[in-house]
Amino acid sequence: MTDWLTGQVSGAEVVVSERRIGDLAGVFADAEAFARLPADRVVYRTECILGVPPGTVGGLFWGTTFIEPGTVGDEYFMTKGHIHAKPDRMEAYFTFCGAGLLLLMDAERHCRAERMTPGSTHLIPAFTAHRTVNIGEDVFSFGACWPSDAGHAYQAIADAGFAARVVRSQGAPRVVPNESTVCRH
Amino acid sequence: MTDWLTGQVSGAEVVVSERRIGDLAGVFADAEAFARLPADRVVYRTECILGVPPGTVGGLFWGTTFIEPGTVGDEYFMTKGHIHAKPDRMEAYFTFCGAGLLLLMDAERHCRAERMTPGSTHLIPAFTAHRTVNIGEDVFSFGACWPSDAGHAYQAIADAGFAARVVRSQGAPRVVPNESTVCRH
Repeated sequence: MTDWLTGQVSGAEVVVSERRIGDLAGVFADAEAFARLPADRVVYRTECILGVPPGTVGGLFWGTTFIEPGTVGDEYFMTKGHIHAKPDRMEAYFTFCGAGLLLLMDAERHCRAERMTPGSTHLIPAFTAHRTVNIGEDVFSFGACWPSDAGHAYQAIADAGFAARVVRSQGAPRVVPNESTVCRH
Repeated sequence: MTDWLTGQVSGAEVVVSERRIGDLAGVFADAEAFARLPADRVVYRTECILGVPPGTVGGLFWGTTFIEPGTVGDEYFMTKGHIHAKPDRMEAYFTFCGAGLLLLMDAERHCRAERMTPGSTHLIPAFTAHRTVNIGEDVFSFGACWPSDAGHAYQAIADAGFAARVVRSQGAPRVVPNESTVCRH
């Protein structure tokens, strides 16, 4: 079962996973602000139905991600982001509640952002890295459906980051170039 | 955008398709009752986002099916049903509103039915034919997400049918053996 208002996924087969501040070293730009947050603070949680083994060709997975409201310095709480290990695999995202941004980056590191509002439906193209950002004051939740053989290549993002970051500027979200990437590369 | 209450999909890229009585010859058991219905009566409608060409490996499609309430004789309005042309491709179904049954049939023609109620989430296994049935008094709508290279093999179902039918018996749905299949095979 999926609750269309909250995104909650229920049933015996649901697998819950959490990402806490302590799991997200290197993700946010402001290392000092990051160090001041408790390591056990939850940034996001997933509730998934993974009915076939990962890597199964032709299969589909289903799940909801809940991102807590908050910032690290001026940077909004967000997911680690990934590109698929099989990069031609698409993914469908669909928003349940809250306010988010979907940050997309193509193979040439060009970034663009799509607003995620309740009901918004996003078919993420192949060869496109994707990360979600909670730009609201409440929990932001969205569902996902993706091929079970897509896999997640987190390392590419961990190494090079996205070319853009989403920061709170005078109370509103702003997409800015990722200076730390510019410096490192 | 997808409206989580009704299932309506909106946006410039949405492709709408309808199946009317005249498109569904041979689907329902009661040929006489079928012949009495107007050929232009809509049985179901789909609203889909098909962002990549059919056959694209790794892609995903998204859409909602709306099945009208009604019967042909004692048999509820339903979809034609299909198995995927690439039969190892799964499909995700998720109910928005109304009351339905998901009829599933494996490669040995064993059938089972799952209740579809708002929020119910169904990951249809590989190698499994699937058909949906409106067992309620109102429009029944559900979403689907499926691989863009899955394809639809309608002919196998058109030739042999499902091994079970869903009929209204004393006002309630009942899953019964498909006698016409038994006769023909």
